[in-house]
Amino acid sequence: MEIKVLKDILSANDQMAERNRALLDSKQVTAFNVMSSPGSGKTSLILETIRALKKQVRIGVIEGDIASSIDAQKVGAEKVPVVQINTGGECHLDAGQVGRALESLLLHKIDLLLIENVGNLVCPGEFKLGEHKKVLILSVPEGDDKVHKYPLLFSVADAIVISKIDLLPYATFDVPTFLKAVKGMNRRAKVFQVSCITHEGIEKWARWVRSSMSR
Amino acid sequence: MEIKVLKDILSANDQMAERNRALLDSKQVTAFNVMSSPGSGKTSLILETIRALKKQVRIGVIEGDIASSIDAQKVGAEKVPVVQINTGGECHLDAGQVGRALESLLLHKIDLLLIENVGNLVCPGEFKLGEHKKVLILSVPEGDDKVHKYPLLFSVADAIVISKIDLLPYATFDVPTFLKAVKGMNRRAKVFQVSCITHEGIEKWARWVRSSMSR
Repeated sequence: MEIKVLKDILSANDQMAERNRALLDSKQVTAFNVMSSPGSGKTSLILETIRALKKQVRIGVIEGDIASSIDAQKVGAEKVPVVQINTGGECHLDAGQVGRALESLLLHKIDLLLIENVGNLVCPGEFKLGEHKKVLILSVPEGDDKVHKYPLLFSVADAIVISKIDLLPYATFDVPTFLKAVKGMNRRAKVFQVSCITHEGIEKWARWVRSSMSR
Repeated sequence: MEIKVLKDILSANDQMAERNRALLDSKQVTAFNVMSSPGSGKTSLILETIRALKKQVRIGVIEGDIASSIDAQKVGAEKVPVVQINTGGECHLDAGQVGRALESLLLHKIDLLLIENVGNLVCPGEFKLGEHKKVLILSVPEGDDKVHKYPLLFSVADAIVISKIDLLPYATFDVPTFLKAVKGMNRRAKVFQVSCITHEGIEKWARWVRSSMSR
């Protein structure tokens, strides 16, 4: 019974996600859905991506949070269009919320749309938004054992970004162990290692984002 | 419509939580529901709590994970009774799952039950398990801006533990800023600062756990 209700919601969400995707495609906008636990560095990676690419491509951002507009203010300071979605308690963005946010963006003036999901390593994996690529961030302090504990997001990600690698000397994160676990779960995902403090790995990451865009 | 369904599920969960609580009370077991993002250090704090208190009180553990038994194995090595719950995709523990786990513990041989919830800073806040105390952990690398982004758990917590304080020199976490935000949201919660690496703050934390027990 509960499962049936969940399926109905998902199906309605999937329909809305397809509508978002069709709209984005018609405007030649490539959308990335950026997901992670709270505090893994979604906003920091988005800011670095903007700084690396804003001379080449026109970027827009949708910020998803349960409450507050802290992140939207940080992104807005980069002078890119940003829409804040407050989910009001919901633990993930859904396609309907993103659809309404798309209405308030001038999509013909955007090439790349970065969507920051609510900080949650579980629920966002179940809700398509109409994105072209799913990006999963895991920060070094979270530990190298998360692949098997949170399998869904690791299995559906197109790119997995290990963030905060400047903290590797102070944390017990074994990169080879983590990479092996990722390969066992998802052979397709590209894996990046970045630090938004030292900027290590950002150029490589930004090149991949650029090459993943539809035009 | 969706909200109505959620309310019905919650109400069934609340009834089951009350049953768990009555069972725990009848056996004089005090239960702590330990919640945080993935990788904030729930298992590490539970291990430290066991080591600090196991000579004084009889401890049992329920480990909640979407998949895997990595944490249950770590806790089992401390020679305390542990039950693993795999939620199979669900992003939080519910009272029904905990009720079934209670059946497989010898509650008359336990004084303190530590329940490790699924790593998620959002959803576990909505589901009572029958616990006596809600403990929220936030690790230093997650950042000091999480109170307003994830208000529910911060507002319902009885204790808030800042973990990984050994990383304070390498992260941009301002403790006074965080404490001020917590006070604005929840004046009742006790706040602790701990490191499971240096053991700083563990003794104070363990004293509070001991003093919060019903006998």
